[in-house]
Amino acid sequence: MPMAEVTVIPLGVGPSVGRFVAECLRLVRRSGLRYRLTPTSTVIEGSLDEIFAVVREIHEVPFSLGAPRVVTVVKIDDRRDKPEDMDYKIRSVEERLGDADADAA
Amino acid sequence: MPMAEVTVIPLGVGPSVGRFVAECLRLVRRSGLRYRLTPTSTVIEGSLDEIFAVVREIHEVPFSLGAPRVVTVVKIDDRRDKPEDMDYKIRSVEERLGDADADAA
Amino acid sequence: MPMAEVTVIPLGVGPSVGRFVAECLRLVRRSGLRYRLTPTSTVIEGSLDEIFAVVREIHEVPFSLGAPRVVTVVKIDDRRDKPEDMDYKIRSVEERLGDADADAA
Amino acid sequence: MPMAEVTVIPLGVGPSVGRFVAECLRLVRRSGLRYRLTPTSTVIEGSLDEIFAVVREIHEVPFSLGAPRVVTVVKIDDRRDKPEDMDYKIRSVEERLGDADADAA
Repeated sequence: MPMAEVTVIPLGVGPSVGRFVAECLRLVRRSGLRYRLTPTSTVIEGSLDEIFAVVREIHEVPFSLGAPRVVTVVKIDDRRDKPEDMDYKIRSVEERLGDADADAA
Repeated sequence: MPMAEVTVIPLGVGPSVGRFVAECLRLVRRSGLRYRLTPTSTVIEGSLDEIFAVVREIHEVPFSLGAPRVVTVVKIDDRRDKPEDMDYKIRSVEERLGDADADAA
Repeated sequence: MPMAEVTVIPLGVGPSVGRFVAECLRLVRRSGLRYRLTPTSTVIEGSLDEIFAVVREIHEVPFSLGAPRVVTVVKIDDRRDKPEDMDYKIRSVEERLGDADADAA
Repeated sequence: MPMAEVTVIPLGVGPSVGRFVAECLRLVRRSGLRYRLTPTSTVIEGSLDEIFAVVREIHEVPFSLGAPRVVTVVKIDDRRDKPEDMDYKIRSVEERLGDADADAA
């Protein structure tokens, strides 16, 4: 399943952007898509159509709250030769690290 | 007018990705949108709907050419308090630099 | 404290990059910096010098494992008017969402 | 030769960031590295040490001009199996497109 890491950066509204991020996240939740909030982004999992629709929607949030300019950064990771999801990706790296640390012991 | 800087990165196809980039660029041209090819990205100017449609389309290109995985990085810059386009953005920075260099002389 | 979201993308090594990510993460751990693994990136917290040093180091990992080409994407978020850390950023958004959901109830 | 696409985004200073971009570009010029200004980024070519030094330096620019927060986005493209530079990358794509258009004619 494709996943997208999204950061919406409002300009011209002061350095604190938490209220914009919270409103974006509310829309992500309403979309019903699986997501994970990270310290710097929101990672969303879904079909490409679903992802593009929600990115399009949250890019509008700061404008609707008064921002004159928005920079939105999106990184889409789309793998089609085998199934994958957000949990799997993290778990597979952690498992490798566990093995490696054991080897190093 | 919003603009988007787009980089499509095919994985699992060897280190040379020029043929993928060329095919993506062909689709951008066909879209009729204004664009600029840079050494690391393609910058596309258009409405958000136009931009999302063409990003969606070029993200598929490497798959259609056999790539098993694609990472697409997009940075959208959308300013609504005053008109702006790709040429203006570059010119305005260059003019400031010209002034500054003159000042420094 | 500045934080950086880092993604190291090896090209020319097949679509599976877990072993590269694991080795990068091992270096991050050794650095002693606080970090968080996300499904699409690693977020690292530290001084700018510390962050740049570790990004420089993990960018080399895929080469040392045989990759001919590496694309590394870094997003640095650096706020200096008030203290902030990775946990705080996530908590502050979640708290706003809690409030908002309560309001909506 | 590695190249880096860099965007420095100042927050808390209003929507117009041209003066920050101009000052960043002045530092890039002083570095003596080859660069290209695009509508959304500056692409810099140099050794990794040179690139990291200049990115580190321009990330500070908005702070020195009064910004309380800066988000800097960097995409490094580093290919080691064959020589490449900014001009070559653009030319090679354009040549492919020329061929393709000829084929289509």
